[in-house]
Amino acid sequence: MIDILKNRKTIRKYTNQAIEEDVLIDILEAGVRASTTGNMQVYSIVVTKDDAMKEKLAPCHFNQPMVKQAPVTLTFCADFNRFNLWCQQNNAEPGYDNFLSFVTAAIDALLVAQNVCVAAESKGLGICYLGTTTYMADKIIDVLKLPNGVVPITTVTLGYPDEDPAQIDRLPLEAVLHQETYKDYTQEQISKLYATKESLEENIAFVKENGKETLAQVFTDVRYKKADNEHFSKQLLGVLKAQGFM
Amino acid sequence: MIDILKNRKTIRKYTNQAIEEDVLIDILEAGVRASTTGNMQVYSIVVTKDDAMKEKLAPCHFNQPMVKQAPVTLTFCADFNRFNLWCQQNNAEPGYDNFLSFVTAAIDALLVAQNVCVAAESKGLGICYLGTTTYMADKIIDVLKLPNGVVPITTVTLGYPDEDPAQIDRLPLEAVLHQETYKDYTQEQISKLYATKESLEENIAFVKENGKETLAQVFTDVRYKKADNEHFSKQLLGVLKAQGFM
Repeated sequence: MIDILKNRKTIRKYTNQAIEEDVLIDILEAGVRASTTGNMQVYSIVVTKDDAMKEKLAPCHFNQPMVKQAPVTLTFCADFNRFNLWCQQNNAEPGYDNFLSFVTAAIDALLVAQNVCVAAESKGLGICYLGTTTYMADKIIDVLKLPNGVVPITTVTLGYPDEDPAQIDRLPLEAVLHQETYKDYTQEQISKLYATKESLEENIAFVKENGKETLAQVFTDVRYKKADNEHFSKQLLGVLKAQGFM
Repeated sequence: MIDILKNRKTIRKYTNQAIEEDVLIDILEAGVRASTTGNMQVYSIVVTKDDAMKEKLAPCHFNQPMVKQAPVTLTFCADFNRFNLWCQQNNAEPGYDNFLSFVTAAIDALLVAQNVCVAAESKGLGICYLGTTTYMADKIIDVLKLPNGVVPITTVTLGYPDEDPAQIDRLPLEAVLHQETYKDYTQEQISKLYATKESLEENIAFVKENGKETLAQVFTDVRYKKADNEHFSKQLLGVLKAQGFM
């Protein structure tokens, strides 16, 4: 089992084979066994299979082709709506219209998402996370008709793999690991920890393609720009307010 | 593999057997294979094994006994510090001092956390998540000496199981699943979806013990109170500001 985790790759191209309903249910049943705060299960999963819905969802993910191509897209949402309704009809006054409760629900949703992904991969499916979810949460709320108390936090496309890409690099484990307390990094350590990544052929090509001097500039100037991050931060905080979490 | 996921239980009591270093490394190596935004790996994991550190960490988790009893505690942190340092020494101007970047890093950290847990369980270890991490982030930052750009988001205790509890209930899968769009719940649906949970012997006992009328009141009046949620919301937003994410 640990080898499935170690050898995994993100899959962005899928065959046109549908995911059998019993396989999907099996994966989701395994997924919801993830830990959840106080066993409240403050999350929901919206399943997209319908072509018309894929058409509507795709622009929310900057038209990344996986949304239309994958047989199934799952949107994982922080969800206190169901729990609040249960409280209200049981003579209990919910106090979950605040930032901590959003974070609690988001954590719940993300642990389930990853559990679903591991379950899917163990069944031979390929998955891809769409980070665009938090950028375009307002649009996704419209398309999926998410009520107050519900915020989409991540999206996963899944299907049977139609590609077998090379496994992508990771930093050496020591880069992300701290023993007992956080040891801040010296310049030398940073250089050493990122040396392999910077020397990879595909990354050197990536720097050239983007007309940049360093790999880090591809991130700051092209892929994840300050202005975009600030714009989407405002949007996301607005969404939390609109959905009743601020 | 899917059976490991389906049959899992949270384990809160551990034998005094240490976790072998190669087993721990194996688990963590599997963990960091989780998907990460743009392969940035904007997270860190702080390992606590030392008794003196456990003493300091325990109050940050309301003295839940697992922290002192588990051979290993892992604190998963949203971390843009390392990435920012890399950018700065590569002539790139990082723009990650904002809310969206915190959420991105928190998602990264949580996917890794769940992957580590699945890997640990596949090796026969038991795990327990500590939701107290987001309540007491400021204290944890002090204890673990987390610099600007780093926020703890969840904590996992792990060790070899010294208990075999019954598996806890979950809502029926249909409760958390929505096809194509979110279908809001009628009173009747809520009653039906929560009926089994409410009828469980342990939950009836739980209501009685707490001197409440309904199970929902145990959550709203005892376990997750509005005043506490609001207090910790303020604290957590303060932490995001102090650590450079707002």
